[in-house]
Amino acid sequence: MEKKISKAVLKRLPGYLSYLKGLSDSDSPYISATTLANALGMGDVQVRKDLAMVSDGGRPKVGYLREALVEDIEQFLGYDNTTDAVLIGAGKLGQALMDHTGFDEYGLNILAGFDVNPTAKATEDGKPIYPMEMLESFCHENKVLMGIITVPAPYAQEVCDKLIKCGIKAIWTFATVHLEVPPHILVQYENMATSLAVLSMHLQAHIKEKK
Amino acid sequence: MEKKISKAVLKRLPGYLSYLKGLSDSDSPYISATTLANALGMGDVQVRKDLAMVSDGGRPKVGYLREALVEDIEQFLGYDNTTDAVLIGAGKLGQALMDHTGFDEYGLNILAGFDVNPTAKATEDGKPIYPMEMLESFCHENKVLMGIITVPAPYAQEVCDKLIKCGIKAIWTFATVHLEVPPHILVQYENMATSLAVLSMHLQAHIKEKK
Repeated sequence: MEKKISKAVLKRLPGYLSYLKGLSDSDSPYISATTLANALGMGDVQVRKDLAMVSDGGRPKVGYLREALVEDIEQFLGYDNTTDAVLIGAGKLGQALMDHTGFDEYGLNILAGFDVNPTAKATEDGKPIYPMEMLESFCHENKVLMGIITVPAPYAQEVCDKLIKCGIKAIWTFATVHLEVPPHILVQYENMATSLAVLSMHLQAHIKEKK
Repeated sequence: MEKKISKAVLKRLPGYLSYLKGLSDSDSPYISATTLANALGMGDVQVRKDLAMVSDGGRPKVGYLREALVEDIEQFLGYDNTTDAVLIGAGKLGQALMDHTGFDEYGLNILAGFDVNPTAKATEDGKPIYPMEMLESFCHENKVLMGIITVPAPYAQEVCDKLIKCGIKAIWTFATVHLEVPPHILVQYENMATSLAVLSMHLQAHIKEKK
């Protein structure tokens, strides 16, 4: 990274990107930080600073050339480099993620799934599912650096340890359990339980108000 | 809510819960905030304060009775009340979520899926999938307050508007796009793109280091 960037900025970039990509050809080819901020209900200054971190293309009064800004953000986020990944736990959720076409545009390529007890040899779309014993050789042969964990919570730590042994440096986990890892490994939690907690609190408050 | 609680606290509670539930019967029936903090790599004071917000059961030197603490957190999070939800976009990811058994323990019950073009009448586990036209009557008849959006990003706002018209008060969206909603509606983004951005940045830094 040439510029040091905070995790908070990093988390806002995909939102800008998806808004920019959603604009149609009939919209102006230019976009200003102010327009973007208004559209997303965010602060002007924050958006201006964020964009300046990832692109040099902003011009006073005109803003950014949309197409160039999209490229700059994508390059910054590494979406133009494909990241190969393996997925452990090829149940329904795991297989749905393996076949999810939306990940392509973020540069994620799930090469294969692994399972202690594979019920199928491949997903519907033909991504291979292998028994766990093949994980280590597969990761080394394919130089895989990212692992996705979709096993039930009680097995997540064991799978995580195995992935690290296989040379994985970044882990994306859907299991709702804290994972112990060495400091050079990044774990990103897709914490659905947290989302549900926030939603359910909101609904409880709503129901109480109505009573 | 009797006690006002911040979103930050709320987001930490599911982590405590999943750790506590993961302990086995052979572990001590008591747990202190310090033990919990150490196990999760968190600050002592923070955990102590968080637990005090949701449970009166803590005793000096002894800590909390584990089982009672689990109940208190679950009750606080509303996991003991079942929340009925509808899901829009019954593709692979949508159907996998509908059949995901892990949501039961968080009190989420996805009653049915809806799709503009349903390819099947039900999921593998038998949850019904209906055409979109049936959404409004279904939501009103079943007094549904939560909607889950798993349609592609370009259709998400349209679906969101429709859900609000059907009386939905809380929306959980998997589409990577910002949604415009009135102030009394809560949107919780399951932003997979954000997770991928964070992971991919980490891997880029790792690869650069090695060069």
